[in-house]
Amino acid sequence: MVWLLSNEDVENLLTMRDCMDAIGEAHRELGMGLAVGRPRTHTCVPTSREGYFHNLKSIDGSIPSKGVSALRLSSDIIFFPVVGGKQRKDKLPALPGGTFLGLILLFSTENGELLAMLQDGYIQTARVGASSGVAAKYLARKEASVLGLFGSGSQARTQAMALSLARPIRKIKVYSPNPEHRNRFAIEMEKKIGVEIVPVSHPEHAARDSDVISAATNSLKPVVQGDWVEEGMHLTAVTVCEFDDLAYKKMDVIVTSTRLQTIISYPPKVAARAPKFMGEYEGITRVSLPENVPELSALVAGEAHGRSSDSDITFYGSIGWGGGPGIQFAAVAHRAYELAKQKGVGRELPLEWFLEKIHP
Amino acid sequence: MVWLLSNEDVENLLTMRDCMDAIGEAHRELGMGLAVGRPRTHTCVPTSREGYFHNLKSIDGSIPSKGVSALRLSSDIIFFPVVGGKQRKDKLPALPGGTFLGLILLFSTENGELLAMLQDGYIQTARVGASSGVAAKYLARKEASVLGLFGSGSQARTQAMALSLARPIRKIKVYSPNPEHRNRFAIEMEKKIGVEIVPVSHPEHAARDSDVISAATNSLKPVVQGDWVEEGMHLTAVTVCEFDDLAYKKMDVIVTSTRLQTIISYPPKVAARAPKFMGEYEGITRVSLPENVPELSALVAGEAHGRSSDSDITFYGSIGWGGGPGIQFAAVAHRAYELAKQKGVGRELPLEWFLEKIHP
Repeated sequence: MVWLLSNEDVENLLTMRDCMDAIGEAHRELGMGLAVGRPRTHTCVPTSREGYFHNLKSIDGSIPSKGVSALRLSSDIIFFPVVGGKQRKDKLPALPGGTFLGLILLFSTENGELLAMLQDGYIQTARVGASSGVAAKYLARKEASVLGLFGSGSQARTQAMALSLARPIRKIKVYSPNPEHRNRFAIEMEKKIGVEIVPVSHPEHAARDSDVISAATNSLKPVVQGDWVEEGMHLTAVTVCEFDDLAYKKMDVIVTSTRLQTIISYPPKVAARAPKFMGEYEGITRVSLPENVPELSALVAGEAHGRSSDSDITFYGSIGWGGGPGIQFAAVAHRAYELAKQKGVGRELPLEWFLEKIHP
Repeated sequence: MVWLLSNEDVENLLTMRDCMDAIGEAHRELGMGLAVGRPRTHTCVPTSREGYFHNLKSIDGSIPSKGVSALRLSSDIIFFPVVGGKQRKDKLPALPGGTFLGLILLFSTENGELLAMLQDGYIQTARVGASSGVAAKYLARKEASVLGLFGSGSQARTQAMALSLARPIRKIKVYSPNPEHRNRFAIEMEKKIGVEIVPVSHPEHAARDSDVISAATNSLKPVVQGDWVEEGMHLTAVTVCEFDDLAYKKMDVIVTSTRLQTIISYPPKVAARAPKFMGEYEGITRVSLPENVPELSALVAGEAHGRSSDSDITFYGSIGWGGGPGIQFAAVAHRAYELAKQKGVGRELPLEWFLEKIHP
């Protein structure tokens, strides 16, 4: 049987603890040189609508100890709106009912079987939050208890969940430029994770006196100023440009999710008017990280150093040059699949539909 | 609805003429710089059985004029048997009933919709044959009528079908080291394509006095000797090593399916005992092609020269460094999908199963 799992199924099955455990183990195996991912690829062509492009994106990861390999794919219509004078990259909910399409295909590495097809939306945000949580266990001060959070979307939710599990967080200050968003976030998430959440009206208030600062926005300009960054803080981000240059200069330890580069393919004749991706296009603040910044896997496997004193300023970026290690999708999808089988959740398709006699 | 098409569905829907038309058009668009493919990727890890590996392989292609993009994936158990003193790469039929798993996912580039999931086995051999047929229309002499064929498997079948459509072939001489195989091939395919097929007991007999020589084997050593290659011949191969060095030296025009390189990812600790792929491993005869050999797309789009006289020796290799252009899968899968919708063939799955509200 091939298990078909919706985002709702996956969210009901998985706790953030599950995700963090799965991702921690997978990164250890990656750091030990026993697991592997491949670079993310984008294959991008114009639609018939000017300025809109189809982007077929995929990445793999294989975890031999779990006997699974995953391919994550997204089929997106992307465009580049200018919001408040700043260019953003966004996805159009172009499918019926204003929806998107992204899947994780999970395979057995023992016999090649297609085990499951999972919608990717919940796992995409959960795995980013979970990897920040895992990184915080190695980088944040043990007693870190105040979290300054930038953003109030789905990435901010999983950051709050994961960082609260990694450290004894007792207060979260959340900033979002939209008061309604930050207020709603505070009410909803306080109930969900049982930690006091205070919406703040200025970004500096979120940063000051925090032990951990987490930026979980889709901004292409810095949202956290280096001025606000103090000794002993742990910083974490979901894009490369959320912290400014001064903040990067202050960091003593920098760790990234992956150094793999994304491979982007356009038709040559389209390149001139092609969309420019994160890190490439007008309006983005570029931050040059030092060469050979260690990956999370090296940190978890003990091959890279974490914090060496309580005064170090540490940073983990799930900053997606390579789309995040493919093994994160494999690890979390595998956990969801195991739980779905145990609990009988999801839809089952006959495996025979996908088997072929022809030696391909 | 998402159409699920089996190999049988696809084979019943598509004629070789359909495949050649679709592939010719797609290569023209690729050659004009309007379509695109990405490099093939392999993500490869050990199974629990020594010497056996799981290989998750994928490639994309997008054809804007057709409004489709395809991702082809295979989930294979591979191993490296030594047959008759020669090492081969083979796939284990590890799935229930001795089966394999490979799929083509076809997407709309207009809204990202998953249009169809097709088994890849029939299309994999059909698209190789069809591309050889398309190349022969540009490279073989107009009146070429005798085909010397090496191999009697599924690749040889589609070569016979496609080359007979491309040129007025009236006789095929087929060689395979196994007499039973070549005899059966002759009987079956003569009926299928209506051309006289003569099994021959020595490879030289297949080559001599032929207008076109097609090698469609899985040999890793040359099967066609340069001595047998004469002025005016058109040669075609499905692997890089089927013709020997002398044959390559005699060629006046060399065209390849793609110059894109495959990207192979192993866990670092596994690399030492990792499988070695085509072109890498012990026992293979290496042939160095000239740099910047033109691709089929350049030939079809008029950007590269074909045969300039009746005495030229021409060569087309669907030789798969990059796994064949991804657009070949997109082109043929799109044609099969269009016919399936028209004729109501295949299984339909609800599109809703694959749609998600979460902005991923």
